[in-house]
Amino acid sequence: MREINASIPFDKALWRQDIAASKAHVAMLGACGVVSGEDAITIRDGLDQVAAEYEVSGVPENWDLEDIHMTTEGRLAELIGPVAGRLHTARSRNDQVATDFRLWVRDAVDQADAGLEALQQALVARAGEHADSIMPGFTHLQTAQPVTLGHHLMAYYEMIGRDRSRFADARKRMNRSPLGAAALAGTGFPIDRVMTAQALGFDGPTDNSLDSVSDRDFALDYLMAAAQCSLHLSRLAEEFIIWASQPFGFVALPDSLSTGSSIMPQKKNPDAAELVRGHSGRIVGCLTSLMITMKGLPLAYSKDMQDDKPPVFEAAGLLALSIAAMTGMVAETRFRTDRMRGAAELGFATATDLADWLVREGNIPFREAHHITGSAVKLAEQRGVALDQLPLDDLKAIDSRIDERVFKALSVEASVAARGSHGGTAPEQVRLRVAEARLALGLE
Amino acid sequence: MREINASIPFDKALWRQDIAASKAHVAMLGACGVVSGEDAITIRDGLDQVAAEYEVSGVPENWDLEDIHMTTEGRLAELIGPVAGRLHTARSRNDQVATDFRLWVRDAVDQADAGLEALQQALVARAGEHADSIMPGFTHLQTAQPVTLGHHLMAYYEMIGRDRSRFADARKRMNRSPLGAAALAGTGFPIDRVMTAQALGFDGPTDNSLDSVSDRDFALDYLMAAAQCSLHLSRLAEEFIIWASQPFGFVALPDSLSTGSSIMPQKKNPDAAELVRGHSGRIVGCLTSLMITMKGLPLAYSKDMQDDKPPVFEAAGLLALSIAAMTGMVAETRFRTDRMRGAAELGFATATDLADWLVREGNIPFREAHHITGSAVKLAEQRGVALDQLPLDDLKAIDSRIDERVFKALSVEASVAARGSHGGTAPEQVRLRVAEARLALGLE
Amino acid sequence: MREINASIPFDKALWRQDIAASKAHVAMLGACGVVSGEDAITIRDGLDQVAAEYEVSGVPENWDLEDIHMTTEGRLAELIGPVAGRLHTARSRNDQVATDFRLWVRDAVDQADAGLEALQQALVARAGEHADSIMPGFTHLQTAQPVTLGHHLMAYYEMIGRDRSRFADARKRMNRSPLGAAALAGTGFPIDRVMTAQALGFDGPTDNSLDSVSDRDFALDYLMAAAQCSLHLSRLAEEFIIWASQPFGFVALPDSLSTGSSIMPQKKNPDAAELVRGHSGRIVGCLTSLMITMKGLPLAYSKDMQDDKPPVFEAAGLLALSIAAMTGMVAETRFRTDRMRGAAELGFATATDLADWLVREGNIPFREAHHITGSAVKLAEQRGVALDQLPLDDLKAIDSRIDERVFKALSVEASVAARGSHGGTAPEQVRLRVAEARLALGLE
Amino acid sequence: MREINASIPFDKALWRQDIAASKAHVAMLGACGVVSGEDAITIRDGLDQVAAEYEVSGVPENWDLEDIHMTTEGRLAELIGPVAGRLHTARSRNDQVATDFRLWVRDAVDQADAGLEALQQALVARAGEHADSIMPGFTHLQTAQPVTLGHHLMAYYEMIGRDRSRFADARKRMNRSPLGAAALAGTGFPIDRVMTAQALGFDGPTDNSLDSVSDRDFALDYLMAAAQCSLHLSRLAEEFIIWASQPFGFVALPDSLSTGSSIMPQKKNPDAAELVRGHSGRIVGCLTSLMITMKGLPLAYSKDMQDDKPPVFEAAGLLALSIAAMTGMVAETRFRTDRMRGAAELGFATATDLADWLVREGNIPFREAHHITGSAVKLAEQRGVALDQLPLDDLKAIDSRIDERVFKALSVEASVAARGSHGGTAPEQVRLRVAEARLALGLE
Repeated sequence: MREINASIPFDKALWRQDIAASKAHVAMLGACGVVSGEDAITIRDGLDQVAAEYEVSGVPENWDLEDIHMTTEGRLAELIGPVAGRLHTARSRNDQVATDFRLWVRDAVDQADAGLEALQQALVARAGEHADSIMPGFTHLQTAQPVTLGHHLMAYYEMIGRDRSRFADARKRMNRSPLGAAALAGTGFPIDRVMTAQALGFDGPTDNSLDSVSDRDFALDYLMAAAQCSLHLSRLAEEFIIWASQPFGFVALPDSLSTGSSIMPQKKNPDAAELVRGHSGRIVGCLTSLMITMKGLPLAYSKDMQDDKPPVFEAAGLLALSIAAMTGMVAETRFRTDRMRGAAELGFATATDLADWLVREGNIPFREAHHITGSAVKLAEQRGVALDQLPLDDLKAIDSRIDERVFKALSVEASVAARGSHGGTAPEQVRLRVAEARLALGLE
Repeated sequence: MREINASIPFDKALWRQDIAASKAHVAMLGACGVVSGEDAITIRDGLDQVAAEYEVSGVPENWDLEDIHMTTEGRLAELIGPVAGRLHTARSRNDQVATDFRLWVRDAVDQADAGLEALQQALVARAGEHADSIMPGFTHLQTAQPVTLGHHLMAYYEMIGRDRSRFADARKRMNRSPLGAAALAGTGFPIDRVMTAQALGFDGPTDNSLDSVSDRDFALDYLMAAAQCSLHLSRLAEEFIIWASQPFGFVALPDSLSTGSSIMPQKKNPDAAELVRGHSGRIVGCLTSLMITMKGLPLAYSKDMQDDKPPVFEAAGLLALSIAAMTGMVAETRFRTDRMRGAAELGFATATDLADWLVREGNIPFREAHHITGSAVKLAEQRGVALDQLPLDDLKAIDSRIDERVFKALSVEASVAARGSHGGTAPEQVRLRVAEARLALGLE
Repeated sequence: MREINASIPFDKALWRQDIAASKAHVAMLGACGVVSGEDAITIRDGLDQVAAEYEVSGVPENWDLEDIHMTTEGRLAELIGPVAGRLHTARSRNDQVATDFRLWVRDAVDQADAGLEALQQALVARAGEHADSIMPGFTHLQTAQPVTLGHHLMAYYEMIGRDRSRFADARKRMNRSPLGAAALAGTGFPIDRVMTAQALGFDGPTDNSLDSVSDRDFALDYLMAAAQCSLHLSRLAEEFIIWASQPFGFVALPDSLSTGSSIMPQKKNPDAAELVRGHSGRIVGCLTSLMITMKGLPLAYSKDMQDDKPPVFEAAGLLALSIAAMTGMVAETRFRTDRMRGAAELGFATATDLADWLVREGNIPFREAHHITGSAVKLAEQRGVALDQLPLDDLKAIDSRIDERVFKALSVEASVAARGSHGGTAPEQVRLRVAEARLALGLE
Repeated sequence: MREINASIPFDKALWRQDIAASKAHVAMLGACGVVSGEDAITIRDGLDQVAAEYEVSGVPENWDLEDIHMTTEGRLAELIGPVAGRLHTARSRNDQVATDFRLWVRDAVDQADAGLEALQQALVARAGEHADSIMPGFTHLQTAQPVTLGHHLMAYYEMIGRDRSRFADARKRMNRSPLGAAALAGTGFPIDRVMTAQALGFDGPTDNSLDSVSDRDFALDYLMAAAQCSLHLSRLAEEFIIWASQPFGFVALPDSLSTGSSIMPQKKNPDAAELVRGHSGRIVGCLTSLMITMKGLPLAYSKDMQDDKPPVFEAAGLLALSIAAMTGMVAETRFRTDRMRGAAELGFATATDLADWLVREGNIPFREAHHITGSAVKLAEQRGVALDQLPLDDLKAIDSRIDERVFKALSVEASVAARGSHGGTAPEQVRLRVAEARLALGLE
């Protein structure tokens, strides 16, 4: 039972939050006259001393004290005597753990946001360098149309931007203080919940005590944002892995984020990218875990909810590593733009440009232009040449409305340059987006 | 292959969105001169006719036409001839499906919000009725302290409020138009993406074409909000199921939301609540499904993403049913307040009140008060009486600081009345919260 | 309520099983004298008539009749009158649905097994063709060592073999008849559960009536086997997708299992493989869904369990499609063995062979051999040549123990031929495995 | 990178398996002449010394050595010098980790089986005590029919039996040795894979080297069995939690597996049961995690697969705790059979018995008997009496075919005694099942 019940092995991670919340609580108790001013100061100083000890020596793991709250209060009593027993007035472990954990998760949100901002900076920097670098744009991992590498990287800037907004939403929603909800019903002591809320940086107190101690939305909001973010990172990781393969050869990964093999000394394995991809599975698993745990729990607190912390702690650690790894990868990878450009030439990637030209210049309905283009591609394929290497006469034989102006549309440079619609891949569009992004990131 | 590839059996649900997006697109093409004004009108009228047909006869399922987009364009061509082929100018199925689906999900968000508002109204109405009704507050499903039924119901008001804010966040984040991103790279036609965005009620166009066609965050945001909401509903459902059991007998469920048994005619089974609880599993499963599907997909569009719709459609249907069922349950259940109050008297639920009284009146540190209370409870248990039925002398024998004033604190009425801290269970607090909620819901 | 409660829209899929179980039940009731022989025959013939109607016209969806059981019994009563009411003697909907669904799942297991056998046959056939075809063996998607395509395909033969054994285990475990468990407690009628079990092909009756009606292990066992299988298929699908990309170019996909693009006529998209990969997400989602639904349900039957069928039906459909698609893909793909062999030459894939040669012929500890090899690879990389194109003198300069015999080890053919350990990639090993597999599949 | 790449913090748990596999490998290398007999002995003794050090002082965590394999080989080299470098001949980290982890999982299977056997013993012992103890049988948590507690407990005996068979299936399927598959392609050294397989207790070597290093089915098989088992335990836990609530009061939980509250001294919280229920969420999360991680990974080894261990280790720890907790709970809980029997009297639980009596004695079709029973129940409800307290005349007024013999069928004792069908709740059936179970468990 001690083993199944003890949460100290993991909840000791909450010690800073526990001390902060206790200090806010006792200051309020003193201000409201629930404990004497003198006692409040004694307790506060005692808590500072406990914190100083933890800082130096870590939190002791005594399973008999069960959790971080009892451990801290126990040590406090050793230091300051029975007055320590007044700290727990007008609160309960239920609102205490809800407060501590919420503070911890709020910090995790802030850390994720800082990491993601750095990743956005890396993406924007590299996108700026490569606004003109042409690579194949893929659908179905088939060469579809030429795009620019800068444009491709800025797609991730957008995703990460949504992740940051998701974390910001989560932060705003969680930023209410449950402290003072007590066990589940509130308290009869004349406490001031607004005061503790402010002291801890919350926007205000929660409005229902039963909800306050049984709510783990804040943890799920965090995990949902983390899971979504990790899926984005898994996509970028997958691309680095594929791009690093010999047949693609689009990137040379930084030595600091790849490893050799024990048996094949020449290999440079994209280990970090693979771990990021793998970690997305674990982070999603953490989210799933807590959703299942919360399902069907009656109000108010149930012990099942102690299983809220391990998945959050695990996900936060994995996410931080993943963000840092991808930031390094983006910043330090050498893009082999020659290989990318070469690949973009394959696969008749400008076929759409031919179709669009026919529509635009020949006023041919799109669907018909599509069929004409198909014939041209088939011919080029038979001849083993690129579209813009087909002789004009052959093109004219396919459709007489084609003339020599078409060739200007069929190079990969022309193709990307043409796509200047808002958010399109044209270098000038990419530079515009990069400039906006730099402004948004405070880099200008 | 036809069978695995055809999405028409499920994506026909998108027909209204597909027609609306096509109309916005062709109006813009006309305005920008990409197609002639006359053609634009012909196409628009044709689309209206197709819509009228769908409205009457449904969308035909022809697997050769594969999806709703081809089905509609095919029918359009039958109606208006080759000019139909101009509709697809400057767009692709990739941005088209992204737009249609986003519009559908946005509608689902709005429907969820409307349903949740009705549920909040039902909760507030019943909470107002029962601001004074005493029931046991549970932790660990053990009687902990008396609370009021109104307070308990208002806990769910809070949860549903967070759900609504989550849907609102999702709506805001998804409300950008991908139309015009074309296949993946944008287009060279002089289109106006702001115009189509406005026509479809979006806040503006998306900023990166690759991201626009490969992004399914909006679907995941919806599913995350739906999953969290379904978990809240599963908790309320669990409570109704337990409360409806004979030993509890806290509620008489409405006939309209419970059923008899084929073999036991007298039973009134909480089927609707059980299905709501069960549906939470399926909705979480839908979320899990799409997260897995999106993991590790390289840019831009991959066919895996066609598997985005079934889980969203399924979750939306299950969520709508679940919200409606719980709204009916809350509105129509007869709360057996006598049984609730009786249960609140059990389990020495006012023990905390004794401990708090000792702290407050006797200035005894909380931890010591806790031990004194424990002795009193043990004695009451041995005697088989409630705490407030213990003779004063016996209480004094346990601790001499106890006097006759204590009895005023030990009734369940006194217990709930005392807990007047912000968000506490005191009837006056509950009434305050209900009044605020009515205001927020526009009921005052 | 009708909408949330009605299961007929999906459980009508059980009609064949429902009829079969009812026929077995009534035959037993007749044999045991619980109903008269005459009544038993009347009911049996009536059930046959209902089945004949369903076969022709489908099962009517009348939500007032709620489920397939009531629908069938209702129709039976119309056909044969009140005697129909004797069919439900000594059974309940709880054991009836448990029986029907178990029969359905057992059929799904058998269908999966048949499909997987066909996939194994395709794998073995292609592996036999390509026992000597050299391709790069990848780790981390980096060229590691040369392997044969036959060997690679036989890896999937092994995976599918485990899937089949998993389905077989599931079948064995589920093959017990719950019929006769009645509502939850068994029955007082003198029934013969062994007789109905045998009639329905079960190995015997279940041993505990409460467990019989509350058990959904059989559905979870099926979903777990299906999920694992879909993960295997997703891996093969991923390989086909990567192999079909232009930079790899290892395969030309069959036209029947790939599609063109609406805007890029020349593309051949691996849609079927992508859908198989996507479907694995949904099948895992189905498993997750049912696990969550079953969590924490008290005995015996709860209505939540009605949510067992949609995920199983969905998973079964997706799995069948996925198996068929991958079978077609394996059977009909054209492997571009020239491209594969060319890629195998890259990346110094025979470095391990050099290290092994040093160990074997030079008696050099493995770790030292590893370092020597590293130097040779670096030199070859600088020179831009393959390992076996380095002059002997240069190799000797790196380590004097190297002599001309080493060149025989450094070709890709020599490399694969050498790996003749049990289960290794040597063609002769592959042929051995193929021969064993053909025997196991009854092809010899 | 060091931080994301280092697996030593968790994979050091594999040290015993790593040593065992290395010893088996080097003994085989010696026997096959790949290394000299003398070297083999030196290495073996060195490995024993490393193991002895680990046993005493634990495994050092040096992140530069990355994983348990390098850590062990590094220490070995310090102890015995360069000859240590011969240990890694004809193997790779890929087959090494696959072997070590498989051995670890096999041990976890054996531990789970032993724990589950003890749980079955506890269930059977308590079921034997309570073969006659009457309690309400629930469907929908509504009193349905009387059952016996012994019968209820034996339902879990059945579930746990299936869990054990699932673990046994997993064990059989995983019990093949990947050692000798080397990096991915097998090896050219003349090794004997059968010999190492036997030395490590495997049934034989695996048959395909690519599959051997990329297969994690064994881990998933374990997690699937663990997840299913934890769902069963969550159901039993839910029952204990509900039964321990004051309104039910069916059980008095053992002090060793419940706790008091910090603020409500009299409460006895079912913490252990709640943690078991919560842990099922986490174990399912672990399974989900690894399924996602494995999705879409191309052959052979990818670094993502390093994320296989944390979820398995976590699940194994949680499962062991959960099994032990439930075993203690079953063995030591005091069942309050008076409360159970009292509850069984409520809710007209013998209504089915009346219906069955009408069918049996009156030869009335089941559906008609059902309606007659409904009228009787309604009358009893109006009168506020139990079914068997209705006067005969009133029953006759409902249906004249009822006579005084009916009363013998309407007591709860008669009800359970009557249900003597195979697997039914009749005490004599329960005793039969208990006797069979004791035999199967080797207790007789």
